[in-house]
Amino acid sequence: MTTIARMAISLDGFTAGPDQSPDHPLGVGGEKVHTWSFGDVHPVDARVVAEADAGIGAYLMGRNMFDGDRGPWNLSWRGWWGEEPPYHCPVFVLTHHARDPLEMRGGTTFHFVTDGPDRAMELAREAAGSNRVAIAGGAATVRHYLAAGEIDELLLHQSPVTLGAGESPFAGLDLALTPIRAVQSPKVTHLTYRAR
Amino acid sequence: MTTIARMAISLDGFTAGPDQSPDHPLGVGGEKVHTWSFGDVHPVDARVVAEADAGIGAYLMGRNMFDGDRGPWNLSWRGWWGEEPPYHCPVFVLTHHARDPLEMRGGTTFHFVTDGPDRAMELAREAAGSNRVAIAGGAATVRHYLAAGEIDELLLHQSPVTLGAGESPFAGLDLALTPIRAVQSPKVTHLTYRAR
Repeated sequence: MTTIARMAISLDGFTAGPDQSPDHPLGVGGEKVHTWSFGDVHPVDARVVAEADAGIGAYLMGRNMFDGDRGPWNLSWRGWWGEEPPYHCPVFVLTHHARDPLEMRGGTTFHFVTDGPDRAMELAREAAGSNRVAIAGGAATVRHYLAAGEIDELLLHQSPVTLGAGESPFAGLDLALTPIRAVQSPKVTHLTYRAR
Repeated sequence: MTTIARMAISLDGFTAGPDQSPDHPLGVGGEKVHTWSFGDVHPVDARVVAEADAGIGAYLMGRNMFDGDRGPWNLSWRGWWGEEPPYHCPVFVLTHHARDPLEMRGGTTFHFVTDGPDRAMELAREAAGSNRVAIAGGAATVRHYLAAGEIDELLLHQSPVTLGAGESPFAGLDLALTPIRAVQSPKVTHLTYRAR
C-alpha cells in the first residue's frame, strides 16, 4: 500500500507564508502558491490533481490544517471545506484533544486521533485497505511523516513564485529524494519524487 | 539579445550550503546540489547543459564565485577552473578591486569590473554581440540581476536534496516567474522560467 503526500509549494520551498492567523490561514502571501488551482484551472493541472486524488482510501491531516490551531479546541468547528469536504473518505486528524467522529456529506468523516502520529497512520492504513493513504498537510505533518520514512511518493505543485519566509515541509530534514516525474503547465510545475 | 542565468539549486531553494569557507567553497553540504554534474553524467542532463551553454558570448560573475572572497585581493589567483576554464569567451568579474585582464587558455579572458553591475552588464552585452549573456553566479549576483529585471531566462537545475540553510538567489525578492520547460533525469530536474 502506497502513502503519498502532495503540497503546493513556492520556488523557495514554502507551503505557507509567514504569520499565519485567522485572517491569513495560509500566511501572508501564501495564497500565491495556490492560484493555479483557483478559477480557470489549466487542463494539465486538473489532470495531475485528478490522478493524484484517485484511489485514495484515507487521509491524514494535522490539527493546524483542520482548524488553524485557533486557540481553544472548538467542538462546533466543522473544517474549512463546507458541509461536503473534498475528501470523500475517512480523514484522520492529529490532535491533542478528543472529539467524537464528525460525519460530513459526500463520504468524508473526520476522526480525531489523540494517540499520536504512529497510531493515526495505523488507523489510516486500516481504513484505506488496498487503496492509498494521503497526507493532506500541513507542512509540519508532512515533515513528521517524511522524517519517519512513512511517505512513498511526494508530489510538489511548485509555483513559480517566492514567499521569502514561512512554513517549510523540509525544515530540519536532510532529504535525498528520487525524481519520478515532472509535468508542467504555464502556471505551475508538478514534481513527483520517491521519498523512501 | 537574451540574458540567462543557470544554477544548481536544492529543493529548499539554496545554491550553496551554510558556512562557506576555503575548505567548503560551496558551503557545508553544498556539493550535494552538484553531484548530478560530476562523473557519469546522465545523457538527459548533459544535453540540457550543452543547450544552455550554446551561443553564450559573454559571462558575468560575482567576486565570490571567482575567488571565494578569500580575504585580501590576490593578484596571483587564477580562478578555480585550471588554466583552461570552461567559459571560452570573455568573463566579466564584479569586484571592488582593479586588476588587469587575465587571459586564460581556450578563449576565456577574465575582465575585472570595478564600476558596478550596470556597467558590467553593459560590457558583457557589448562583448556578446548577437550571442547570449549568461550570469555564471553566485547567488548574490543572480539575485542582483533578477531584482534589476535584467534576466530573461532562469534555468534551475533542481536537485532532489535539502540543505536546510545557505545561499539563496531569491532572498528578499518577491518573484513571479513563468514556467517554460521542465526536463527530468533520474538525478535532477531542469526548470526553465521566463524571468521578466
